[in-house]
Order: sequence, then C-alpha cells, then structure tokens
Amino acid sequence: MTDSDLVELRRDLHRHPEPAWREFYTTARVVEELEKRDLDALYVGPEALAEEDRVGVPDEDELGAWLDRARDAGARGDLLERLTGGSTGAVAVAERGDGPTVALRVDIDGLPITESSAGDHRPAAAGFRSENEGYMHACGHDAHATIGIGVLDAVLDSDFAGTLKVFFQPGEERIVGGEPMAESGHLDDVDYLLAVHVGLDHPTGEIVAGIDGFLAVSQFEAEFVGTPSHAGARPESGDNAMQAVATAIENLYGIPRHSDGATRVNVGVVEGGTATNIVAERVAIEGEVRGETTELMEYMDEKARRVLRSAAEMQGCDVGITTAGRAPSARSDDEPRDVVAAVARDTDGITSVLESDRLGGSEDATYLMRRVQERGGAAAYVGVGTDHPGGHHTATFDVDEASIDHGVDVLSRAIVELGRRRR
Amino acid sequence: MTDSDLVELRRDLHRHPEPAWREFYTTARVVEELEKRDLDALYVGPEALAEEDRVGVPDEDELGAWLDRARDAGARGDLLERLTGGSTGAVAVAERGDGPTVALRVDIDGLPITESSAGDHRPAAAGFRSENEGYMHACGHDAHATIGIGVLDAVLDSDFAGTLKVFFQPGEERIVGGEPMAESGHLDDVDYLLAVHVGLDHPTGEIVAGIDGFLAVSQFEAEFVGTPSHAGARPESGDNAMQAVATAIENLYGIPRHSDGATRVNVGVVEGGTATNIVAERVAIEGEVRGETTELMEYMDEKARRVLRSAAEMQGCDVGITTAGRAPSARSDDEPRDVVAAVARDTDGITSVLESDRLGGSEDATYLMRRVQERGGAAAYVGVGTDHPGGHHTATFDVDEASIDHGVDVLSRAIVELGRRRR
Amino acid sequence: MTDSDLVELRRDLHRHPEPAWREFYTTARVVEELEKRDLDALYVGPEALAEEDRVGVPDEDELGAWLDRARDAGARGDLLERLTGGSTGAVAVAERGDGPTVALRVDIDGLPITESSAGDHRPAAAGFRSENEGYMHACGHDAHATIGIGVLDAVLDSDFAGTLKVFFQPGEERIVGGEPMAESGHLDDVDYLLAVHVGLDHPTGEIVAGIDGFLAVSQFEAEFVGTPSHAGARPESGDNAMQAVATAIENLYGIPRHSDGATRVNVGVVEGGTATNIVAERVAIEGEVRGETTELMEYMDEKARRVLRSAAEMQGCDVGITTAGRAPSARSDDEPRDVVAAVARDTDGITSVLESDRLGGSEDATYLMRRVQERGGAAAYVGVGTDHPGGHHTATFDVDEASIDHGVDVLSRAIVELGRRRR
Amino acid sequence: MTDSDLVELRRDLHRHPEPAWREFYTTARVVEELEKRDLDALYVGPEALAEEDRVGVPDEDELGAWLDRARDAGARGDLLERLTGGSTGAVAVAERGDGPTVALRVDIDGLPITESSAGDHRPAAAGFRSENEGYMHACGHDAHATIGIGVLDAVLDSDFAGTLKVFFQPGEERIVGGEPMAESGHLDDVDYLLAVHVGLDHPTGEIVAGIDGFLAVSQFEAEFVGTPSHAGARPESGDNAMQAVATAIENLYGIPRHSDGATRVNVGVVEGGTATNIVAERVAIEGEVRGETTELMEYMDEKARRVLRSAAEMQGCDVGITTAGRAPSARSDDEPRDVVAAVARDTDGITSVLESDRLGGSEDATYLMRRVQERGGAAAYVGVGTDHPGGHHTATFDVDEASIDHGVDVLSRAIVELGRRRR
Repeated sequence: MTDSDLVELRRDLHRHPEPAWREFYTTARVVEELEKRDLDALYVGPEALAEEDRVGVPDEDELGAWLDRARDAGARGDLLERLTGGSTGAVAVAERGDGPTVALRVDIDGLPITESSAGDHRPAAAGFRSENEGYMHACGHDAHATIGIGVLDAVLDSDFAGTLKVFFQPGEERIVGGEPMAESGHLDDVDYLLAVHVGLDHPTGEIVAGIDGFLAVSQFEAEFVGTPSHAGARPESGDNAMQAVATAIENLYGIPRHSDGATRVNVGVVEGGTATNIVAERVAIEGEVRGETTELMEYMDEKARRVLRSAAEMQGCDVGITTAGRAPSARSDDEPRDVVAAVARDTDGITSVLESDRLGGSEDATYLMRRVQERGGAAAYVGVGTDHPGGHHTATFDVDEASIDHGVDVLSRAIVELGRRRR
Repeated sequence: MTDSDLVELRRDLHRHPEPAWREFYTTARVVEELEKRDLDALYVGPEALAEEDRVGVPDEDELGAWLDRARDAGARGDLLERLTGGSTGAVAVAERGDGPTVALRVDIDGLPITESSAGDHRPAAAGFRSENEGYMHACGHDAHATIGIGVLDAVLDSDFAGTLKVFFQPGEERIVGGEPMAESGHLDDVDYLLAVHVGLDHPTGEIVAGIDGFLAVSQFEAEFVGTPSHAGARPESGDNAMQAVATAIENLYGIPRHSDGATRVNVGVVEGGTATNIVAERVAIEGEVRGETTELMEYMDEKARRVLRSAAEMQGCDVGITTAGRAPSARSDDEPRDVVAAVARDTDGITSVLESDRLGGSEDATYLMRRVQERGGAAAYVGVGTDHPGGHHTATFDVDEASIDHGVDVLSRAIVELGRRRR
Repeated sequence: MTDSDLVELRRDLHRHPEPAWREFYTTARVVEELEKRDLDALYVGPEALAEEDRVGVPDEDELGAWLDRARDAGARGDLLERLTGGSTGAVAVAERGDGPTVALRVDIDGLPITESSAGDHRPAAAGFRSENEGYMHACGHDAHATIGIGVLDAVLDSDFAGTLKVFFQPGEERIVGGEPMAESGHLDDVDYLLAVHVGLDHPTGEIVAGIDGFLAVSQFEAEFVGTPSHAGARPESGDNAMQAVATAIENLYGIPRHSDGATRVNVGVVEGGTATNIVAERVAIEGEVRGETTELMEYMDEKARRVLRSAAEMQGCDVGITTAGRAPSARSDDEPRDVVAAVARDTDGITSVLESDRLGGSEDATYLMRRVQERGGAAAYVGVGTDHPGGHHTATFDVDEASIDHGVDVLSRAIVELGRRRR
Repeated sequence: MTDSDLVELRRDLHRHPEPAWREFYTTARVVEELEKRDLDALYVGPEALAEEDRVGVPDEDELGAWLDRARDAGARGDLLERLTGGSTGAVAVAERGDGPTVALRVDIDGLPITESSAGDHRPAAAGFRSENEGYMHACGHDAHATIGIGVLDAVLDSDFAGTLKVFFQPGEERIVGGEPMAESGHLDDVDYLLAVHVGLDHPTGEIVAGIDGFLAVSQFEAEFVGTPSHAGARPESGDNAMQAVATAIENLYGIPRHSDGATRVNVGVVEGGTATNIVAERVAIEGEVRGETTELMEYMDEKARRVLRSAAEMQGCDVGITTAGRAPSARSDDEPRDVVAAVARDTDGITSVLESDRLGGSEDATYLMRRVQERGGAAAYVGVGTDHPGGHHTATFDVDEASIDHGVDVLSRAIVELGRRRR
C-alpha cells in the first residue's frame, strides 16, 4: 500500500468507529485487505481468540444492530458471518524462512464519544467524521490498525527472515480484548512482541522506544438490590440501595494506601433509583482499582469487594459484583527497546528518540506482553509521537497522518532487525 | 352523561395518560365536554393558573412532542392552541342563584410507568390500555377527571343553590400543579372545597369523609459539578462529584429527628459519571424531605440544603439545588367532613363510611385546601373506595368503575347539602 | 420527721451523691431512717433486687473505693456490709389492715457532674455542696429519697388501710436499676404504683398528675478492635477501627425513620486510638436508641446492631456490643392519675394541676409501672413542680425545698385515697 | 568515658524517660557530663533553640510536675533553672583548629508507653526500668544521647581538625523539636551533619550509611465544637460534633492519591462526648498527613483542612485546627554517606554495611538536614543496627548495648574523616 492508500484506509476506519466486541466493519475491512496479501495463515474472529475468556459481551440485540450497521456501511457479508457472537479481531501470519517469530500488536476499537463537527476539526472539515453517531476513534486506534497493515507490507517487502504475526486486537478501551487474544495460543511461539500507541502527548517525529509504568487494573460493576418502599408512608420497610452505595463509595476511596507502591481507586459511574418518594431498590456503580504491580491491584480489589459486600449487608441489600475488564502490569524489555531506539535514531522524519517514558494509565497489551515474557520472549511497548489537537478521549482528538509513516518505518525496520537476532 | 358515558370517558382518558404540564389531550378532552354544559365561565390552561408559580416545566422539544401526540390522538387543535407553554388544566364555573360557593378539585395527570399488557389486566384485556407507551394512569386520575364531569352534571341537574366550581388540576404526581392553581384567584371566594381520591386501599363501597395526615413535602434536585481527571494518571487533579454525592447522601439520612413530630428524608434517584477511569465531573440526585407540619418540612429542607452545600464544598465542587415540587400539610375541616359522612351513609352502594383516615404521604391538594381555609372557608379531602388489583403506582393498578358512580353520587349530594349552609 | 428534718436529710444526701450501684452512703442513710419506723418488712440491697438482672456493675476496685468513701462519710458499717457487690437500694413495707397494696417508687442515685461552687448556687452558699467531687445530685433524686421517707411517715400517721410499699431504687440515671427492682417480686402484689419526679420545668406549686410520653430506650457500648500498624510505614497492614467507627456513626444516624411513631438514635461518647501515627487498634462508642413504643425501640436496636457489625466487618475488625441499660415505654393509668389530680387540687400550696404532660425522654420507672400493669394493677408517674435555677443535669441545678412538702402532702394523701379503692 | 561508663549513663537515662519539652532530667544529666569536657561553647535550653518555633508546649502545671520529678530524681537545680518554660536540649561546640564544621545530631526524648516489668525484659531484670511510670525509652533515644557523649569524647581524643558540634535535640517523637533547633542559628555554619538512629530492624553489627525515604509529615489536632442537646427530648436542637467527626474521618481517608508519589493520612486518636443521651458538644481528633515530598505532604494537608472545615460546617459546628508537629522530607547526601560506609567497613564489630535503606516513616532530623543542605552543606542519616527484642514503640523494646560502641566508633571516625575534607 502506498502512503496515500494508508491514509485513505485510516480515514475509512475513522468513519466507522466501533466499540468492544462490535468491531464488525473494522475487522471485515482489515481482513479484506489482509486477504490481498501473501499470507501463510489468517485467523479471523473466533479463530483469533480464546472465546471463553471474553467478558463484557453485549446482548444479541446490541450485536445485531451493529452488524446491520456494518453491513449497511458496505462490509462484506461473508466476513461478517465469521464474526459470530461478537468475536472480532484477526491475526495474520507470514512465514519468511528461518528466524525468530516477531509479532506486532495493534488495537482496533473506538470509543463512545460524539465526534466534534466543528470547522477546525479536520475529520469534519475533510469529510471523514464518524458516521456512527455517538462513537469516535478518539484514541488513534484507526491509525494503529492502519500501521498494522503498513508494517505487514513493509516487512513482506524486505529481506526479513523469520515469522511475522500481526495481531489486530479488539476491545482495548474496555480492557476486555487483551486476555482472550493472549490466551488464544497464537502468542505462544512469539520471540519478540512490539505493541504500538500513537500520541500520548509526544509530538510528531518523536519515538518512545519502550514505555513502562503500566498500572495493573481491574474494573468492576456492582449492583446493589434492596427493597423498595414508599419513603413517606413506610420508610422503615425499605432496604435502601442508595444508602448502601453511598457507604460503599465513601469506603472504597478510603481503602488504605500501600507502602509497596502506587494504588488507585475510582467509582466513575453511578445510576439508580426511580423516584424521589421511593426508597431505591436498585443502584449500580462502575469502578476500578489499580496498582503499580498486579499484586497491588489485587490488594485493592480484595479490599474493594469486602467494602461492597459489607455495605450491602449493612442495609439488608444484596450486591452482585462482576469484573468488567482487567489487565496486569508489565514492563518493556531492554533488547527490543534498544533495537527500536537504534533504528528510530536512523529513520527519516524522526527528530527525537526517548528510551522510555511512564504511562501512568493501563493497557491490556500487558496481557500479550506478559504471555510472551512468561514463555521466554521479550516485548516492548512503542510510542509513536503525533501532534493531536485535542487530548486523547476528547471530541477533537485527531492524529497527524504523517505519524502513520513514522510508525510503519520504525516498526517494520525494528522487526527486520529483530529477525536477525537469535533468542 | 349516563353512567356508561362516564365509563367511556374514563377509558378514553386512560388510553392517553400524560405527565405534568403535558396533559394536552386530557385537558382538551375535558374542555370539549365542559363546553357542552351550561356554564357561566370556563377557564382553560393559562387562565386557570398563576403561571409564574409553575416549576418543573419541560423544554420546548418535550412539550412539542406531547402536543403532537395529543393532536395525533384526535384532540381539538383550537383547544390545544390555548394551552401555551404547557399550561394545562381548567376551571368550570356554574352560578345557580344565591348560596355559598362550593368547589370540587380533581387531578388529571398520569405517571411514567409502563402499563401491564397481561391478560388479566382489564385495561389490556378490554382494549383501553395506555397508548402513550411508558406512561400510565396508575393512580386513578382518569377516574378523578371523570368524576369531575359527572358531579358537574349531577349538581346542574339538582336544586343546588349557590356557585359550583370544578377544578381540573394538572401535575399532582410531581406536586407542581397545586400551587399555581391555588394562587390563580379562582379559589378566593370558595366557601367549601372538596377534593377526592379513589382507592388508597379502601374497597369499593367505602367512603372516607375527611382524610388527614398529609405530610408537607419538598422535592429537590441537586447537581454536583466538579472537575474530571484521569483516575489512573492524575487522580489528584479531579474534584470528585461522586465523593461529594456519597457524603451528601449519608448526611441527608442523618439529619436529626425532630421532637415536634414526624419527618422524612429520601434520596430516590442518582445518576452521574461517564467511565470507570474518569473522576466524575457531574453527579445528580433527586430527593425529598417531608414533615408532619410545614414547619417540620422546612426544618428538614434547611438542614438538607446545608448538607448539600457543605458536601460539595468538601470536594471542591459546585452544587446547583432546585426545588422540584412542594406541598404543605393540611387538615380536613369538621363541617364538610360531617356533611360528606352524613350523605354517604344514605347513598346507595355505600356499605362503609369512615370519619377519617391518615394518608401518610403527600398531596398538593393541600395548597388548595389551605387557600380556602386561610380565607375563612372549609375543606375536606374525601376518599372513595375502589377495589384495585395492583397497588397505586404499579403496572397493574386499575379502578373498579362502579366507584365512579359512588364518587359522583356522594360528592354531588354533599355539594347540594353544602349549598344549603351559610358560612 | 418534721419539715426541717426532711430538709436536713435532703441536704445530707445532697452532700453525698453516688452513681449507679455505688449508692452505699445513700442506702445506708435511708435504711438508718427506715429502721426507726414501725415497719413490717425492710428489704435491703440484694434482698430488694433480682440480682441476675443487674448490668453495668463496676469492678471490685471501683466498688471498694466508693465503699471506703461511704464509710469515711459516716455510713454505718453493718449496713454497708449488707450491700454486697454493689447491690444497693431498699424496699420498706408497712401493713395497715385490710385494703389494697399501694406503692411509691423513688430513685436515689446521682450524676457524674461537677457541682458548681459559685456563690449564687445555694448548695455551695449554704454549705451542702457535693463532697464527692465530680459527682452531683443534679436531677433531684436527693429530694426524691427524702420524699419517700416523708410519705412513709405521713401515711403511717394517717388512717390508711392497706399495705404500703416504698421502693428506693438505685441506678435510674444509667437505667440499670429499674429492671432488677421490677423483677424482685416485691411489686407482684401491688395494686397501685405512684412514681415521682420533681421539676421537669414545672414551677413550684404545680402538680402533673400523670406523665406520659416515655420513650423506650436501649443503651449500647460497642468496642471495635482491629489491627494496629504504623500509618506511615505500613498503612496496608492495619485493620482500622477508626474507619469502622466513622462508618458506623454515619449509618446509625441514617437508620430509617418509622411510620409507626417517633424513634431516636444517638452516639454520645467516643474514645480510642493511641497516636497519630498508629492505625487505631481500638475505638469504642457509647450510644442509645429510643422509640415511642418498645417495639419501635427494638426496631432501632436491631438495625443499629446490624450497622455496627457490618461496619466492623467492612474494615476487618471485630466488634463487641453490650447493652448498657434499657427501659420500656409506659403510660400512666387514668384511675391513679385522677386520684392524684383530685387531691392535688385540694392541697395547700398547690397552685396549678395538670392532668398530664409528655416527658419526651426515658425513665426506668417504666419497668416497675409495666410490672404492676401486667399483673392487673394501675400506675401513674407524678410530677411535682419545683423552681430550679439551672436545668436538669447541669452544674447549677437545685430544688426549691418547699416542693419536698408538696410532694409528701400530695402523694401521701393520694395513697390514703387509693387505699379506699378496691381493685 | 569508658564503655562501661557509657552503659551506666544510658541506663540512668533509661530510668528517666521524659516526653517532649519535659526532658528536664535528661538535659540536666547530659549538660552535667558536657560541663566536664573541654568545650568552647555550651548552649543549654533556650540558648539552643529558636523558642518562637516551638509548638505543643504543655501548660505550667504539667511542666511543673515534671520539673519536680526531675529534681526529686537528683537533677542539678541550677541546670533545671536554665530550662525555662520547657525549653530543653543542648548544643555542645568544640573548636579544634582549621577545618570544616561537622555536626552530630542525637535526640533525647521518651514515649508515653508503660514499660514492661516482665522478667525477660532486661531493663526490668537488671534494675533500670523506667521510674517515670507510664513513660519509657521505647525507641532508643537513651542510647542516642549516650552515643552523643561518646562521640564527643572520641573526637576530642583524636587528631580531628575543624569544629565539632553535637546537638542534643528534644521532642523528636512529637516532631516538635527539630524545627526550633534547625532555626536556632547553630546549624548555619555546619558543613557536614550526621544524624543517628539505632535499630530500625537492623541487627547488631549492621550499619546503614545513609537512610532515605523520609516522608514529610504534618500532624494536626482538630476539635469540633457544636451544641449539646438532649438526644431524646430535643434531638433537633443539637449541632452534633459526633456526626461532624464521622464525616471528617471518612473523607480524610478518601483524599485522592497523588500521581507524583506516595501520600499518607491517618486519624489516630479520637475522644469526645459526655453521655449516651446527650448530642455531643465536643469531639476531638488527632491525625497526620504525609508525603514522599514536602509538596505532597502539603497537598494532603490542604485537602485535609478543607475536609475538616466542611465537615464542621455541615453540622453547624466550629472546628479549631492546630498543627501539632511537622517535618519535611529529606535525603542523605552521597559524600557523607560514602564516608560513613567506608569507615564502617573498616570498623571492628561491624559485620554488614548497607549503602542505604528507606525509612518509610518520618523524623524531624529532616529539618536539620535541610537547613544544612540549603546552606551548601551535606547530611546523612546513619542507622546503627541493634538487636531489639520488642519492636520500636512497644513495651518490651530494648537496645543491645554493644551497639552504643558501634555507633560511637563509626560516627567518631566518620567525623574525623569528614574533618579532612574541604567543602
């Protein structure tokens, strides 16, 4: 694909942002491209995932509506049919002789954000604003998927020796796609894994060779269910889910800090009750805990569950707790990081190379990184700078499309170089 | 109107339940009937209300949608045009010679409840289930409006001497219609006021001559607005509306009891936040306080506002507090109550007459009762028993239509008798 | 005893205030007087109580210290020896021929309040300020005990026919003495019981014939025990009793109001923790719940215990809950109330007689009243007005000694009159 | 002083533990020793401190009682007279020719802990258990003061060239002594400062050359004052300090974590209220906040004050907040740390030398370290291992007296070596 083809692909994907387990158009569009390449294997949807590890899958109605939308947007029906039950994503494999197995992971999902239609928002001005109203590629995953295709082309066009695998992962924003892909078996023979993210406040032309500081995270949903009653006539007959939730929130934030390192807790969403004069029967919250290590996250998670259960019990309520998404911590290894840094310093358009930086947030690429590391491989999480007018996860986010080339060049050259290593 | 006409009218109204300030079909349908009677005055919509005392009026889009729905259902366009800005309701006046002014107040609004479509739910079985999906006459106000027409007919057909006024009040369920109607001026010359409610767990054939025990109530909405931040990367940068709300809820329920009498507090609805990883910028609650007297309600209200403000301040948030609806306490007077009890004991179909009962909830008929009482008149709140399969405010509520006649008979005869009094 | 003897006795008792189960001097002094009368039975200490129903008994050291103090103040050693284990109080019985058994109950304990030494505080000025520093007769029980002796003398000196019992009850302030005395058996044949209290904001010369509105009460102590840890170095290792208590307090005040009547809850005392840098291992609270009826108190008590247990569990703490004192609700019966009112209207010095008034607080005389009522007798709680410069339970409380005579006259005449009744 | 003299001195100090600003015996005893040395200056009590920076000074009665105790224990009266108003501590200065100014800081105060009298607690067995019942040298400051004297002797006996200053600092446990000593002016010409602490879970024979990881700390006391009322009769009349404190505690622990580094918060002590039936008028808490940097501590402190003020306001209470003690963060510098490590590796009895370790707690030696560092000097906080049977701040803590020699040897040799440097 030429540079301008890549830009065109990115804009097509940008027009069709889809959230977790609903990346029907995106997967079909990517697979359509992949089928044109000379691959040795191509795993689509269910074939690319350990389906039993999926969580947060929407119901049939929701899936059906998004399938219809993808079909209406022109996605190939035969490909959509392979994405049963919302199993999206794909893995492309190209064997090019004797050498290590090198993998690239890109994520492909969008966000539930309404995209800006302002005149100075380039996707709006240039006619590729989101057509899925209320959803948006506000974190650059459209560029990531495009880079995946571009890297594949560049490596196939090089003297790379070894096996290349490109993982197109669904559901990163909800941190639900990483684990099923990590457990799929496709990573088990990988010697080197590179993951990529654009932006993160790094300008166009800057490369971060190995990002660290991922916080392990676990998201939860807790639904408190009590007994409704008329707040005026029978206040004593209720079991008040509202009071249970208030007590839970106060005590979740009060979980003790840990001397081993950073922890986090947040209750981000609350919703419940029906009327001012009814003691609330049902109130639900969505929250998360994090830790500098997986152990610290688990410390927070265990305490949080005790708070939730005791707060329910205090008010005679039941509480159903579900884990909505989860990702471990991880670190970038020296070897692939050094390779990326070296090639980046020697790549046209790259004006600044940082050895490392701290993310301070979470990412479920860590599942894939850990899988590779546990089996003796090495991994690095690579940042590709891009000027972005609005912040990540805002309505005016956009990528500088020059950074697509930067990503393709640096990553494909690093993969070729890694192919020369022996592990 | 014959008894079967009344039943037909009630079923028509039942098919078109409308919430506060959106009673377009209902008002037009009632006024259409009233225009057929020999009235001396008929005040419609804005003419029936002190418009400046209205709260909780929906925005133009919402009003427009309900107007369209009313028009589509067959409401007369010229009448709809008079209900500008959602000023609904009506007052009918009939002067019949020298005598006191006697008034009847009925309420006409529906509830945001989805009506049962089960086979044993009579409105569904008999084909008059709600056509406004998601809304329902689940508290009998369809029967109330019908009784209003029936009483008017019966009194006009009697030897009543005096002036009769029938108030068709909007917005009782949100307690927003009582005050603007009480302040309209139409009550200022009323000597006797009767208000009516069917059911309340009294069976068909039972009359409660004067209900007491109304709790004064004030409903509030509080919207906490802080500063969002990424819960993993910058937890310290947020001003957390979620924590503010949790603290507010805990302390609202902790407002001290009062030695002068019963008080109540409830937070019935909560909603806010956007994602697990974002410190919540905005969380809103809806709640209410009540008191056995208006003073006790005001004690609770003052304390509640202090809690809301301090909870916001504690987290660096702003809080906007609006009063959503309000009603004072009130009592039924002896004289009209005794008249109702006396005629009820002598009315066909009435098998049980209670002097009084306690409501334990709130009602904004109290505004009208107080208005009359403050100006030297007397008022009684009359209960008309009706067997109801489901409870008030549930999806299977229905009235025994025999009780419509009971209401018409008892109330019209009581009005005639009150016409014989001198105040 | 002459009036001036009674005043002298009251001042002697005032100088020696003693708290629950430590009324050694007071009991000995009262019994010393009783022994001078012509009684048919005199039950002292353990003989006057169902000892197994005592709670809140201090340890041996504490009891020993108060015994020493009583001995040093001149109490008779042989009498002190009978008050084993802090079983204080007495019951005097006089049989005077055929007639009903009529009882009077007075309480005898003091409060842990430091008495004023100001010049305008009469006990200080007149030399009978408390000699037990830190303790004070700040609720008039010194006058009550004195009235008990005075009534006995007056009845014995009258033509009373029947049996008179005077109960000198310990531990009212901690509501621990009423139940053991009610269960002693001495009340089981009582036909009429009068209890008495001076003051209660009624002026000298006023009598309240039958006080009502006692709230049932249950006092609790809750000790939360967790695990200490260094708050800087190992915050995660603690199980924080401080957080458990904070959550408990917030939720205790949030126990829902009850539609059946008034309830109360209060946490009055808190104490715990050792240093700012230690996660608190132990924090204890003392609180109480009340209800307009015993059932309402029990509703509150059950909810309170659930809150305490869940708050402990939420923080990984244990909680020990003990009931510190308890009293039921009760009502004054018509017959004895009417007798008291009738004789009061005819008594010198009485300028105002109220049929009844509401207490709004609690009293463990209710145990004795209920015992009598359950066995077919009747009871009334009589208020004897007294001008008191400071409020009850304050350092400047004092009684107008003229009210001692009023109490003696009204109560003795009422007892004589009740002796004429047949139950 | 011989080794056995040092042991004897340590045991004498151990028998007389004294808390902050009450170290009368200890200061007098130390000064008595210092006067025997050939010093160039000796600053005692007020002369050693910036008195205006003292906080947490007890009242006259308390100071007087401890002065009497010191006098009774044999402290020299003329020395006690110099310690006006509880200004304790001392600074000894010895000038030994041309060279840098090198300082040693030791702390001298004890803790409010009752010392074990068990047979296997050596101070009890060997007869030097605390004679100030309820107080104890449970953190080794008796050994620190002794080491101060020992180092002085050893340096004076060496070929040290330069100026030596030994700071005997009061009030470390309450972190109130560091700032007044740092601001005294005596540190302003210091080139190198060493501070010392024994134990900290390092065994006898181990030296930590430069301890880091001090958390900045600020302690607060907050007294909530509301309005009392009878909890049964007038619950609405109270302004409840108990509820204010509960809300404050919950929200203090909920202050957001900070992405810049570790923070801490603890409420360690609570006390208030008078009786179960009184709405609490006054409840006080003692707490602390910490941060990995002084800025982080100040972030916590600012948030904590807002919580305290808003919680009071929510309940209509006042709150008085006082800062009880405060210390910044600090770090050990490389140069003195390396010198200590080098000499330690070459010292008899030292079996293990650690370059550094993290404290995880707080220490007000940081005030002195920062003062020196701000003026261009360098500082290190040295750990001297000692086997301690019980943990720091427990009733069975004791030091292995062999570690006194270790401290004297390592520190005096390091000081001599630092004297050879030029800054």
